[in-house]
Amino acid sequence: MVEKRNPIAVSEAVKRVMDYAYTEKVEWVPLIEANERFLAENLAADQDVPSFDRSPYDGFAIRAVDSQKATKETPVSFKVVGEIGAGFVYEQEVQAFEALRIMTGAPIPKGCDAVVMLELTKDEVRDGQTYMSINRSYEAGTNISYQGEDVRKGEVLIQKGQFINPGVIALLATFGYAEVPVFKKPVVGVIATGSELLEPNEPLQAGKIRNSNAYMIMAQIERAGATAKYFGQFSDDLDVCIEEVKKALSQVDILITTGGVSVGDYDYLPAIYEAIGATVLFNKVAMRPGSVTTVAALDGQLLYGLSGNPSACYVGFELFTRPIIRKSFGSPTPHLRREKAILGEDFTKANPFTRFIRATLHYNDGQLVATPSGFNKSSAVSSLATANAFIVLPGGSRGYEKDMPVDVLLLEDVQGSEWPWDNIKKYSKL
Amino acid sequence: MVEKRNPIAVSEAVKRVMDYAYTEKVEWVPLIEANERFLAENLAADQDVPSFDRSPYDGFAIRAVDSQKATKETPVSFKVVGEIGAGFVYEQEVQAFEALRIMTGAPIPKGCDAVVMLELTKDEVRDGQTYMSINRSYEAGTNISYQGEDVRKGEVLIQKGQFINPGVIALLATFGYAEVPVFKKPVVGVIATGSELLEPNEPLQAGKIRNSNAYMIMAQIERAGATAKYFGQFSDDLDVCIEEVKKALSQVDILITTGGVSVGDYDYLPAIYEAIGATVLFNKVAMRPGSVTTVAALDGQLLYGLSGNPSACYVGFELFTRPIIRKSFGSPTPHLRREKAILGEDFTKANPFTRFIRATLHYNDGQLVATPSGFNKSSAVSSLATANAFIVLPGGSRGYEKDMPVDVLLLEDVQGSEWPWDNIKKYSKL
Repeated sequence: MVEKRNPIAVSEAVKRVMDYAYTEKVEWVPLIEANERFLAENLAADQDVPSFDRSPYDGFAIRAVDSQKATKETPVSFKVVGEIGAGFVYEQEVQAFEALRIMTGAPIPKGCDAVVMLELTKDEVRDGQTYMSINRSYEAGTNISYQGEDVRKGEVLIQKGQFINPGVIALLATFGYAEVPVFKKPVVGVIATGSELLEPNEPLQAGKIRNSNAYMIMAQIERAGATAKYFGQFSDDLDVCIEEVKKALSQVDILITTGGVSVGDYDYLPAIYEAIGATVLFNKVAMRPGSVTTVAALDGQLLYGLSGNPSACYVGFELFTRPIIRKSFGSPTPHLRREKAILGEDFTKANPFTRFIRATLHYNDGQLVATPSGFNKSSAVSSLATANAFIVLPGGSRGYEKDMPVDVLLLEDVQGSEWPWDNIKKYSKL
Repeated sequence: MVEKRNPIAVSEAVKRVMDYAYTEKVEWVPLIEANERFLAENLAADQDVPSFDRSPYDGFAIRAVDSQKATKETPVSFKVVGEIGAGFVYEQEVQAFEALRIMTGAPIPKGCDAVVMLELTKDEVRDGQTYMSINRSYEAGTNISYQGEDVRKGEVLIQKGQFINPGVIALLATFGYAEVPVFKKPVVGVIATGSELLEPNEPLQAGKIRNSNAYMIMAQIERAGATAKYFGQFSDDLDVCIEEVKKALSQVDILITTGGVSVGDYDYLPAIYEAIGATVLFNKVAMRPGSVTTVAALDGQLLYGLSGNPSACYVGFELFTRPIIRKSFGSPTPHLRREKAILGEDFTKANPFTRFIRATLHYNDGQLVATPSGFNKSSAVSSLATANAFIVLPGGSRGYEKDMPVDVLLLEDVQGSEWPWDNIKKYSKL
């Protein structure tokens, strides 16, 4: 018996899963472990930056007014009354024609309103007292980094949901986040199905293939920012499978099975979904590859039945699972980032379905060019390795030619897109 | 006393550090841990893919010759002699007008040379025997994925040095890499210097700032793919510092200190380098920010003295440390990836030095546009958080205007560039 399945549009399928977005959870981690996580609250400055008026250079702090008459012909001399390094505070007030030797980052002492760079001064010692002289005048404010000129206390610098990169780490350190609130990584379980599967450590056998999808998906889960948990391969026994799925669901936030979603007689997934009472959100999508992607929901948990075909499995994850993960990180742009590119070579085979062609991007004088990644049968794993984008080709009756503009979805990007599925349509020839 | 320093060109400074490239070391890690590492040997196929002729669909395997006379009016009927699932082998030879029910991924049985998709067949049972009929003819080879059509045994699929992404993980699994040879991550030590520094968990004090550079650099080290090891802050005592540096050097491959590299009286680094017998490769670079970046070498180990200024520190790492780390991963393109972009806004202040302006990239219809990231004083940390590129502005007497083409260096890219420093020059106005 062939089961009837009604394909739905990609955008509709994405919409259906997004309604089941996983609830955001927050945890606090030590600063350095927050790197490459997603910030769970707005980062506001707890202080001005700089938090005091400071010297950006090594030199001498002076009262600008004392420098007014200094020229090459008539240098003005200042009595050096002390020195101050970064991290220290000079307590006295500097008086007329006095100068304080000051290091980069040190606070401007009371009385001073300008800093003269060291290399523009001359020093001499008279009667055991050091003096320095300058041969030009300075305006008040010269070479002073004023309190708050970079950042004002209370200013929101980084929005909740931001990916934490080295620059964000610097801000977090500056504002005293020894511990950082980040979104918890959802745990995504992976079960491989298929009696043809060997694990990578097993020697090849006739009719069998090594399980590559489960490992690939685990890497995709990690790239999306979540934690992967592998449950191994399904048993051949349906009742055992049902128990395995129940057990896995109790340990994860999201469960992915690979394989077992097509209409072959040996595919258990529909029976399992029925047995555990999961609601199938869709089991066919009008796209290539990945048309037999199935998603079901049970008590708010999503179960993904991705294709056993590597390319279809890869696409299904990126379109339907990744945005759920990224949404759990508070991202307003959880979907694959969509941009425009120029098609790098002809892609002439027409197809009635929306296609996601794995592709490699490069720049031609700053212009994004997308070239299909090698041999493009949906069974080929080799081209997945070089792909860093999908070219989205809307279904239609004609092919696409080199240099035509196409939509691309970026795979190695952390920024994402809000909702890339509107207006994905055919372009007319340039 | 002001020490004399001779600035050298950026390209010359990079050349000097690259001569000290860290020796590649290899380790084997479990497959899933190889994700986001760098492959340490060429990955060659240990088998054909597919490794046997197989069915890409659920359907029936037949001898094509038997279908020659099938039409809508005169369907041809086949006796269904059995079925075969993926992972199994059908041992008998299929005879004339026999068909074998076959699942996706199962090996094509002996005798058969075509597969009819399930949905194009009709089945019926007569006298307890199942038959299926078709109403068109098929050529030999229809719907067969032939052995080796994706990949031939022995073919090199991935070059040594490749970044391991989910697609590469799939290939590694397919070819039996339960353990994967990857390049060892160099351990990069970080010491913060500066009497003004507080750690992020300390409350602010007058004249002091929180140490952001050390944490930022650790995040940069991790982004580059290495392991960061924090040694805390330097002592105020020179002799203790010398011991601290010696001890740190014995535990790391590369040592970075932040701060303490300018010509202020309190900077210990030159004295430390002298005391331990390190050779200073350069201590001034003709660039902004980061002109006081110092690199020294001792017994093949590199010691980086990066500026205490966050922007200068950031730039110094990306230009001079990152390529050393990436080279240790076998990358032929260890430097920041250089591309062309259009300047997103005017940048009119001329400067005689080559400048690295932190910038945010976006695409305008697939055209890369680089916009300086906010307030651009070199002391501002706030703009580092949003930057994902440097705009490289060669020194000269004039400013740059919106829409002019500029060179950019990409910060969040794993691909890199071979040697981005040739031909970095001024563009004439478009």
